[in-house]
Amino acid sequence: MVRVAIVGVTGYTGAELARILFRHPQVELTALVAVVDEPAPLGSLVPAFRGRLEALVVNPGDIDIAETADYCFLATPDRVAMAAVPDLLARGVRVVDISGDFRLRDRAVYEKYYKKGPHEAAMLLGKAVYGLPEMFRDKIRGAEFVSNPGCYPTGAALAAWPLLASGEVEDDHVVVDAKTGASGAGRFPGNAFIFAETNETLFAYGVGVHKHQPEMVQVLSDGVGRPASVLFVPHLAPMTRGILSTCYMKLRRKMSAADLHGLYEEKYKAEPFVRVLAAGQLPRTGHVKMTNFCDIGVAVHEDSSTAVVVSAIDNLIKGSAGQAAQNFNLMAGFDEDEALGDIAPVP
Amino acid sequence: MVRVAIVGVTGYTGAELARILFRHPQVELTALVAVVDEPAPLGSLVPAFRGRLEALVVNPGDIDIAETADYCFLATPDRVAMAAVPDLLARGVRVVDISGDFRLRDRAVYEKYYKKGPHEAAMLLGKAVYGLPEMFRDKIRGAEFVSNPGCYPTGAALAAWPLLASGEVEDDHVVVDAKTGASGAGRFPGNAFIFAETNETLFAYGVGVHKHQPEMVQVLSDGVGRPASVLFVPHLAPMTRGILSTCYMKLRRKMSAADLHGLYEEKYKAEPFVRVLAAGQLPRTGHVKMTNFCDIGVAVHEDSSTAVVVSAIDNLIKGSAGQAAQNFNLMAGFDEDEALGDIAPVP
Amino acid sequence: MVRVAIVGVTGYTGAELARILFRHPQVELTALVAVVDEPAPLGSLVPAFRGRLEALVVNPGDIDIAETADYCFLATPDRVAMAAVPDLLARGVRVVDISGDFRLRDRAVYEKYYKKGPHEAAMLLGKAVYGLPEMFRDKIRGAEFVSNPGCYPTGAALAAWPLLASGEVEDDHVVVDAKTGASGAGRFPGNAFIFAETNETLFAYGVGVHKHQPEMVQVLSDGVGRPASVLFVPHLAPMTRGILSTCYMKLRRKMSAADLHGLYEEKYKAEPFVRVLAAGQLPRTGHVKMTNFCDIGVAVHEDSSTAVVVSAIDNLIKGSAGQAAQNFNLMAGFDEDEALGDIAPVP
Amino acid sequence: MVRVAIVGVTGYTGAELARILFRHPQVELTALVAVVDEPAPLGSLVPAFRGRLEALVVNPGDIDIAETADYCFLATPDRVAMAAVPDLLARGVRVVDISGDFRLRDRAVYEKYYKKGPHEAAMLLGKAVYGLPEMFRDKIRGAEFVSNPGCYPTGAALAAWPLLASGEVEDDHVVVDAKTGASGAGRFPGNAFIFAETNETLFAYGVGVHKHQPEMVQVLSDGVGRPASVLFVPHLAPMTRGILSTCYMKLRRKMSAADLHGLYEEKYKAEPFVRVLAAGQLPRTGHVKMTNFCDIGVAVHEDSSTAVVVSAIDNLIKGSAGQAAQNFNLMAGFDEDEALGDIAPVP
Repeated sequence: MVRVAIVGVTGYTGAELARILFRHPQVELTALVAVVDEPAPLGSLVPAFRGRLEALVVNPGDIDIAETADYCFLATPDRVAMAAVPDLLARGVRVVDISGDFRLRDRAVYEKYYKKGPHEAAMLLGKAVYGLPEMFRDKIRGAEFVSNPGCYPTGAALAAWPLLASGEVEDDHVVVDAKTGASGAGRFPGNAFIFAETNETLFAYGVGVHKHQPEMVQVLSDGVGRPASVLFVPHLAPMTRGILSTCYMKLRRKMSAADLHGLYEEKYKAEPFVRVLAAGQLPRTGHVKMTNFCDIGVAVHEDSSTAVVVSAIDNLIKGSAGQAAQNFNLMAGFDEDEALGDIAPVP
Repeated sequence: MVRVAIVGVTGYTGAELARILFRHPQVELTALVAVVDEPAPLGSLVPAFRGRLEALVVNPGDIDIAETADYCFLATPDRVAMAAVPDLLARGVRVVDISGDFRLRDRAVYEKYYKKGPHEAAMLLGKAVYGLPEMFRDKIRGAEFVSNPGCYPTGAALAAWPLLASGEVEDDHVVVDAKTGASGAGRFPGNAFIFAETNETLFAYGVGVHKHQPEMVQVLSDGVGRPASVLFVPHLAPMTRGILSTCYMKLRRKMSAADLHGLYEEKYKAEPFVRVLAAGQLPRTGHVKMTNFCDIGVAVHEDSSTAVVVSAIDNLIKGSAGQAAQNFNLMAGFDEDEALGDIAPVP
Repeated sequence: MVRVAIVGVTGYTGAELARILFRHPQVELTALVAVVDEPAPLGSLVPAFRGRLEALVVNPGDIDIAETADYCFLATPDRVAMAAVPDLLARGVRVVDISGDFRLRDRAVYEKYYKKGPHEAAMLLGKAVYGLPEMFRDKIRGAEFVSNPGCYPTGAALAAWPLLASGEVEDDHVVVDAKTGASGAGRFPGNAFIFAETNETLFAYGVGVHKHQPEMVQVLSDGVGRPASVLFVPHLAPMTRGILSTCYMKLRRKMSAADLHGLYEEKYKAEPFVRVLAAGQLPRTGHVKMTNFCDIGVAVHEDSSTAVVVSAIDNLIKGSAGQAAQNFNLMAGFDEDEALGDIAPVP
Repeated sequence: MVRVAIVGVTGYTGAELARILFRHPQVELTALVAVVDEPAPLGSLVPAFRGRLEALVVNPGDIDIAETADYCFLATPDRVAMAAVPDLLARGVRVVDISGDFRLRDRAVYEKYYKKGPHEAAMLLGKAVYGLPEMFRDKIRGAEFVSNPGCYPTGAALAAWPLLASGEVEDDHVVVDAKTGASGAGRFPGNAFIFAETNETLFAYGVGVHKHQPEMVQVLSDGVGRPASVLFVPHLAPMTRGILSTCYMKLRRKMSAADLHGLYEEKYKAEPFVRVLAAGQLPRTGHVKMTNFCDIGVAVHEDSSTAVVVSAIDNLIKGSAGQAAQNFNLMAGFDEDEALGDIAPVP
């Protein structure tokens, strides 16, 4: 058994991670940590856990994680991980940081897009393995420090990578028009995200300035081995979960839909969590909800020589807690899909 | 391993049952049956199953279930089970009928409320054990034929039974004001249930004439050992899953909220799937979704000497497929909660 | 032209009122007031008004309403009106208070249910006319001070009043099981009301302790001329607008559905905003959204001698801003339905 | 007064049109037509109209529209208008066809994309004025036959036209990533559009083959005066109303966001129903719902020299019934915004 700590267990990502790891046969949840008024059983703080997982949630100051856990997941707001990770690593705890603190390697880029002042553990930037298993599985295996990808970059990278890598895309450029559910804003986003403001409305925001924009550039550049160009436009849709990423890539020369489809099938044929749909089919977020799957469908618009690649993920699973567990399985040498075998509920 | 057939596997209840039993360590799904254009893998008919459960779905006429399965679940429209069950039982197949064909014992009552003509297997009415484990667990154990309760009666019976059974309710009468999600209408309900007609609206229907009205009377009368009286008013709410049942019972004499709460805690203390919430708390459908739990909260309105008992279930799990699996576990002698350990996703 | 001030114009009720009065041919909106960072056009604060109503919204301290307006609507949080109304009335401004400050006549009851300390304008309690036109039209005509009913009491009173008034209900008691949309919590309710927490869930709250409980008792007692008894259980449903109130009343003696229907038709035959549906029909919130209608349907459950009366309103229109405008029309001597002629959008 | 017929009045577009024209001071609704079991008042067929508009709806065969009306709106399924329009025009009735029958001028293109066989009134193709007032106001004024634009093309054309027309876009090409609410599928779309299948899911469909694809090419080519190139990808979002169109156009040379914004402000400064938002703001569908507005926001992604222009409309108003009324006002010489002054409800 491996001893595991989850910091931020009362947020959406932390709770989903607890739900997944609770059924992991090799995991003992030894530390559930969150900012709480007073220590309380998880089930009294997050009612879904009532009667199932009632371990005590304690405040960060009341526990020494390095004494308690072999692995620590940080599902925390910006700038918490950068304060905690150096000590954890120094004391031999393996870390999966699900926050954005260590995703970008370039300190200047981090500070430009996160806009919350200087990075306080800059010496560790670039030390974390970027936890997208489809791209970096070998580095994740046995890694001590993994930075879990953002939800949007996960969907976009899995959709755009194979075609960009083929060298067939003009300017190595992709437009990512992504639509997320409201849980992406977390559990404490405030009045702008109340039901009455979100229901029955849809909008774009943060064109070119979202903090996931440079992360997409970084991961896709790494994935294709040369600078990739990304225009990322996020949208908020009136649903709880899911990200649909519609990616547009101008083709250098003609490519049939069948060839494009073959390219994706070949790339992902051995992947446990990527489902390339049958030719002509496009994914729906509903078909991957509560699962670690990324569904992908492709099309070619011949008149404009443009490939359209669409991916669907659950933002809290493959886009967050599920992928963190997948990375953990690789780090610890377990079956990659341990505890991640869910089929989406119908409907 | 037990060989299991699911008839109606492409409907919501059938699909959810397949999802549950797929992970049951003692089950082999040997027959997936539905009315289909041509035999096709489940994953191509119900996309959630892609890459997970790709067994062929065949038409009813193309398979001899008694040759193939030890247990048969019928998740079928009205009047299908009544045609199929006699032969299945005669040939030794154990049956869980999730449809309404065999829930009511009284043929006249059946015909009055179902309004589709004479019952065609009336000799079997009353032969099925009513599959509400909290009430009839001993009879379900080892049973050959179980009729799975309706979704509304499950939520109402679990909420009203303890107090009615105590004899403290005037006229043994309960008002059940229940609110269901739209999946209760099934996968093929037609234009009246399209998104645009259901979203942003809420309404009551079928006051006193819903087919679950006599089922509630029957199960509660059985449960308390004398005729119970029920007024059932169903409502459709703009959500996919869940039933919230708000039950009103006039008290014969004063009862404190603490005593009422104690009554429910005592009744359900050993139940694996009933969670009586802490005093003062009321349940939410969101906290039980995708799970087999029934959450119950209680309150007393002293001015009018009325007990208010509220239950929340997932209409497709505890209200249908999950309870069917729970009954199956009892029939087959497996752990009652095998394959039913889910925690609700957050959010 | 009548000069009108709206205080709290950036909240949901205030904005809806502005939307309604903007098209009122006899109204000049001379003061739009709200707590704002700095004075700004309404369209920049509430984007729906862009290009239509761009008058400046100013802070309460920056305007003398009595100088500016003949009528003042207060769409404000608790305890704001009690500080403002005495001066407004003293200076001759007619007031429609849409908040709860002056709905209850009994100071002790107010303080028990509102739980925010002593009422600070207790000398005015009972001075306001309760603005339910169907019950108190004559008093509202020409009134100087109207307290606009709560959303829940509006739906409940219109549903229960005719039958209670007939004397045919046991103990003059009604159970009100009401389901509201999330806009009822206002525009600034905080993290408990974010989309992800509200979507796909339904729950009851505040059994017997909601501040609308004593208001229902008061209005129905006034309406029937003897003490009425109410058990009110509010529910939150995953929709933006609408309240469906399902009311249960035990009949003293047999009454046919036709007689019950006739009673309601008779009572409301001259009402411009109450639609008694055809016999056998029940209302839907979607059919009254964005309108000042209250739709009512009735049924009788003969087995338990219970009348079930269901009403549907838009909580922000007939339940708030629309009714305020209706009261204003009566106070000012305009056509009662001026500016209130909307038909619900389809769908 | 002008006598007006609406054919298809029980569908969503027809009903919304009736709602709008009912309050038009110059309109008398003399013929409400739909396929009905038997003639019935509109309020009994579409409950929103109860008590407001109870004129009889009759079957097409039971009325001679040319005898009854000066103007006829056709809000009908494919291929109904092509059978009806020749006779209506020949007999002097002015026609607004809201269906897709006469939008495309090229018969071959029509038959390729609509896929329902030969056009049966091909001699009239090209005779209808395309009813996008912002582009073709002068032709619409006084026209006898207007073809009302599709919902998607309305949002896309208003967003893309100004920049395409400037000549600053590479290849005169625009990618239109559009997200619609479910009412776009009409009132009778069948089981694929039921609530449980649509809620909590989002997907793309019909890449490059949607029947609005060639309509966008046609209208934008007309608008800019040379062949425009369009890649249109529609998406279905879990909401009832609204279309958000996110348009991507690669710039030939650098353009600042301020210059782009100025271009749009200039183009639309006199338009009554286009609101160009303040620099830096992007539109939301919720802010235009139930209104005839098209809100537009712009951004420039400098790294990839791409303009992002986003428009929001209500698919049933500016995208259908409202624009039809706007066209009617122009045809008949009324104020263009008569009966179209709505402000969006909040929230």
